[in-house]
Amino acid sequence: MRVNGQHYRTVWLAGHTVRMIEQNQLPFSFQIHDCPDYHATCRAIETMIVRGAGAIGSTAGYAMAQAFLAGDDVARAKAAIEATRPTARNLFYATGRVFAAGLSAGAGAALREAEQIADEDSAACQAIGEYGAALLADSCRVATHCNAGWLAFTDYGSALSPVYVAARLGKKPFVYADETRPRGQGARLTAWELHGENIPHAIIADNACAFLMTRGKIDLVIVGADRIAASGDVANKIGTLEKALAARYFGVPFYVAAPLATVDAACPSGDAIPIEEREAAEVLYQNGPDKEGVMRTIRVASPDSPAYNPAFDVTPAALITGIITEKGIIKPQNIGQVLA
Amino acid sequence: MRVNGQHYRTVWLAGHTVRMIEQNQLPFSFQIHDCPDYHATCRAIETMIVRGAGAIGSTAGYAMAQAFLAGDDVARAKAAIEATRPTARNLFYATGRVFAAGLSAGAGAALREAEQIADEDSAACQAIGEYGAALLADSCRVATHCNAGWLAFTDYGSALSPVYVAARLGKKPFVYADETRPRGQGARLTAWELHGENIPHAIIADNACAFLMTRGKIDLVIVGADRIAASGDVANKIGTLEKALAARYFGVPFYVAAPLATVDAACPSGDAIPIEEREAAEVLYQNGPDKEGVMRTIRVASPDSPAYNPAFDVTPAALITGIITEKGIIKPQNIGQVLA
Repeated sequence: MRVNGQHYRTVWLAGHTVRMIEQNQLPFSFQIHDCPDYHATCRAIETMIVRGAGAIGSTAGYAMAQAFLAGDDVARAKAAIEATRPTARNLFYATGRVFAAGLSAGAGAALREAEQIADEDSAACQAIGEYGAALLADSCRVATHCNAGWLAFTDYGSALSPVYVAARLGKKPFVYADETRPRGQGARLTAWELHGENIPHAIIADNACAFLMTRGKIDLVIVGADRIAASGDVANKIGTLEKALAARYFGVPFYVAAPLATVDAACPSGDAIPIEEREAAEVLYQNGPDKEGVMRTIRVASPDSPAYNPAFDVTPAALITGIITEKGIIKPQNIGQVLA
Repeated sequence: MRVNGQHYRTVWLAGHTVRMIEQNQLPFSFQIHDCPDYHATCRAIETMIVRGAGAIGSTAGYAMAQAFLAGDDVARAKAAIEATRPTARNLFYATGRVFAAGLSAGAGAALREAEQIADEDSAACQAIGEYGAALLADSCRVATHCNAGWLAFTDYGSALSPVYVAARLGKKPFVYADETRPRGQGARLTAWELHGENIPHAIIADNACAFLMTRGKIDLVIVGADRIAASGDVANKIGTLEKALAARYFGVPFYVAAPLATVDAACPSGDAIPIEEREAAEVLYQNGPDKEGVMRTIRVASPDSPAYNPAFDVTPAALITGIITEKGIIKPQNIGQVLA
C-alpha cells in the first residue's frame, strides 16, 4: 500500500536483509528498520517493530530463510524465531514451511518458500478486499475498530482491504475509525494508513459509534479478528462487542474480515478463548508528541486510582452478519464447516 | 463529601466571598478558588472552575446574593450572571429566586434564599442517594459513565449518590468508572471523587464495559442525565447509549439518576434534543502531567487525520430500567406525568 505516494509492503527482503516499517514509531515518524541477520529479525518481532498475525508470519519466514542463506545452525534459529511471540499461530506455520523447504532443497528453496508465504498472505488479503468491496455501495460510510489494515499483514490488510479495493473501483468510501482505547490503534495506525491511501476518514471516540448509527451515518461495520472459534464467535480487540451490539440494535450490517488461518477449529466456542489482561498503565497513561515534537508520556487519570484493562472481547456469532475470507463471505455459523 | 478526610461542598459562601473547588485543576491538584464579588463568581462559571448543572445553580444564586450584599446594581448583576452559561437551566432558576427575595426583603433575604437553593440541591441529591441505595445489594458492582458525582452538584451528586449512601450503610459497593473519552471525566473526576470517599473502584476503557458484563462483573449501571425528554428519553454524555445497549443485551439493570429539574417537559422526545458537536482537538490531543508533574498537551492520533466529536447521545426510554429522582424511582415512560 502507499506511503507518501510510494508503494510499500509491511516487510520485505532486500538481498539478505529483512526490511520492515518501524511500527513502534508510527504514526509520528515513518522509518524503515533493517535486520541484517535472523537474530536482528527476531528482536524486531519481539519488540513489536513488526506486529499483526500476517506480518509476523511473513517476517518469521524471512528470518528462517536468513538463517539458511547465512549458513547458520538452522534448528537453533528455528527455535529462536519461534520463541519471539509464542502465541502467534502464523509464525509457526511460516518457520515450519521454510525450514522444511530449506532442509530438503537448500537455501534458495528456503528463500523462495519465504517469498511464497508473504505473497500468499498478501493475496489472501487482496481476495478479502475483492469479496468485501462488493458489500460497499458508492459513498458507503464504513466504521472500523482497532487496526486490521495492511500494517498487520504483508499488504492490503483484512478489515481495511475492502475499503482499499472499493476506493480503487471509484466507490469513494468514507471511514469512521474508532480511536480504540486504550492503545489507540485506530487513531494512530488505521488513520495513518487511510491518510496514506487518500481515503477520506474521521477518527471518533469509541463512545461515538452507536450515536452515529442513530443518525444514519454508518452503513456498515467491518472489523478484524484475533481468533475465530468453530462456532463463529470472534475474539477481537476490546470494544468490538459494543460496536456489534449497537449495529444489531440499529440494523447496521456487522462484518468480520479475516483470512481462514484465523479460524481455530480446535476451539469450540468463544467461551474457550482466553482473554489477555494487560497492564493498567495502558489506561492510565498516554504517550505522544508535544507541540515541539518531543515524545512525552502523561497521566490521563486521577493520580490515586487503579485501572482494569482486558485487551480483547468475544462477539457471539449471532451478532455477526458475515465473515469475509479469501474464500468468500461465510455465515459465522458455517465457518467450522468451511475448514472441514 | 470528603477530600483528604475533610468535608467539602463544591461551592459555599464564607462571609461575602464565594469559595469553590477549582475543578479545572482536578484531579492533579486540589485548590480552593475565592470569588470576592459577583464579577469574579461570573468569571468562575464562565471558565468552568465550577461546572455541572446543580453546582452552577448554587453558584449563580450566591453570585446574585453577593450583588445585593455589596449594594451593586442588581439588575445589571442578574444579566451578567445569566450571560455566563446561557444553556444552564438551574442558573436562571437560581438568579430569579434570589433576585425576587432580595428585591422584596433585602440583602439578608437574598443571602438566605441563596443558601436555601444550595441546601435544596444538596437535599435532592441526598434523596436520590437514599432511593438509589436500595437498588444496591451488598458488594454490588456498579458501572458508571462520565461524572455525575458531587462535583457536578452542591453535594452528593446524582449517579454516584446511591453509591455514597450505600457505602455509609456498610454495603461495600465497587465502582467501574468508564474513563469517558474524549474528555476523561470518568478517569479524572469520578475516580478522584471515589478515592476521596474510599470507595473501591477501577477505571476502565469505555470499550470494556460490555466485556465485563459478559463475565458477570457488573450488577447494575447508573448514569446521570443532561436532559430528560417528556417521553423518558435521556440525553447524556456520548457513550451512554452504548452502555445502555450492552446492559439490555446482557440483562443488567440500567438506571439514570437525576433531579426532576433535569426533566424538560417542553421537549417531547429525544429526537428534539439538539446534540452539541465539540472541537476535534478533544479527540486528537490529551493533557496531563508528565513524570515530573509538568502539565503537557500531546497528540494521541495520527498527525494528518481529522476527528468528529459529538458530545452527547440520546438513550431511548425503552432501554432505561428506571430514573432515580428525589421523589423516588420512576419508570421513564411515566416521567412526564410526575411533573404534571
